[in-house]
Amino acid sequence: MKRSGSRRRIVIKIARRMLQANDDVAATNRRAFAAAGVRVINILGSPGAGKTALVERTVRALRRRMKIAVVEGDIATSRDAERVAAAGAMAVQMNTAGACHLNAGMVAQAIEGIPLKKHDLLIIENVGNLVCTAPFDLGEDAKVLVVSTPEGDDKPAKYPAIFRNSNVLIINKLDLAKAAGCDVRRIRREALELNPRLIVFEVSCRTGRGLDGWYDWLTKLVAPRR
Amino acid sequence: MKRSGSRRRIVIKIARRMLQANDDVAATNRRAFAAAGVRVINILGSPGAGKTALVERTVRALRRRMKIAVVEGDIATSRDAERVAAAGAMAVQMNTAGACHLNAGMVAQAIEGIPLKKHDLLIIENVGNLVCTAPFDLGEDAKVLVVSTPEGDDKPAKYPAIFRNSNVLIINKLDLAKAAGCDVRRIRREALELNPRLIVFEVSCRTGRGLDGWYDWLTKLVAPRR
Repeated sequence: MKRSGSRRRIVIKIARRMLQANDDVAATNRRAFAAAGVRVINILGSPGAGKTALVERTVRALRRRMKIAVVEGDIATSRDAERVAAAGAMAVQMNTAGACHLNAGMVAQAIEGIPLKKHDLLIIENVGNLVCTAPFDLGEDAKVLVVSTPEGDDKPAKYPAIFRNSNVLIINKLDLAKAAGCDVRRIRREALELNPRLIVFEVSCRTGRGLDGWYDWLTKLVAPRR
Repeated sequence: MKRSGSRRRIVIKIARRMLQANDDVAATNRRAFAAAGVRVINILGSPGAGKTALVERTVRALRRRMKIAVVEGDIATSRDAERVAAAGAMAVQMNTAGACHLNAGMVAQAIEGIPLKKHDLLIIENVGNLVCTAPFDLGEDAKVLVVSTPEGDDKPAKYPAIFRNSNVLIINKLDLAKAAGCDVRRIRREALELNPRLIVFEVSCRTGRGLDGWYDWLTKLVAPRR
């Protein structure tokens, strides 16, 4: 048991070093984004919460108002980048080869091929994971967490770190809330208890309900720089 | 960039060592389970797929036929253990203090307080995570993957490792499939392409539909040892 303890200490030390190295690269990304005058959001959430649907809707709604590029983080396939490109944005697929989250270095690679100066907004869609994506700074302006009503209303208490680290919470699949027996007010209340500064939108990416507030928020995020 | 490359090699090396150390502990767990004559399943899936609902249903349905104990893996709270205990099983909550998966060592700790010889079935509910839980052997007889229809029908292709590593696939929330626009046959087909030996059950833990096949499978799993 002692050996297992010392092994754990080594792993924690390496994990800290990895996070520090990540933060250094994130700072470099942040400077590149500022120099190019592009705003950046990092979209987080469980598999199937509706992250890609949100990106598709957002691109279709805002593509005439602003120039949007998208980095799609996935473990495998380029399906999401194809969906987003079809919606009208420049899309780069970033396959993580098994890794459970994007880190700043992956984003630095992905943006090499994107003319940042020509874009107003860069959307980074992270790997579907409510745990491992939370601590990694990518250089973004805001972390946007997507949760969906069929996941249940107990997620803030069970996965607190990601709620604490996010700036915006999008509660998606409002249209399924009743059938799924989900108490949307409980999600909102418990999320705000963890993080009182969270900006919360209740939406359905299927019907479009509630998305105008989100579009306004994004438009304001982008506006000062243009 | 060279420094980042060598750092990555170190991390992969440590990850391999961690998996090897995990497998050693898993082998010890497996011997303890065999000696006690208890069968063990490891339940995996995204946050909100319905893992705890499946455990509750299973305990209620089978508690008169077999003695069941449950280890609940969660990052925070003891809510799941309380739900399962209320259903009538001995339940041990294992909080991972932030970790994104259970490992064999955590399970070894959790079972210290469980009289294994007095139980027929041990159910281990893993942390909600479709990525990081896949490679960790806990000493179980079978990995049971729960996916739910509102997560969408593209999950096998996007998270292939966990489909390849599982023995049983439970497609849950059949009652929401239509409203969520989910093609259940596509999940089944693409999952079986990745892993032709997967045993698949289509169920709704809300209505109870389709669960009899799952109960029969579990009963057969346990039977030879009793």
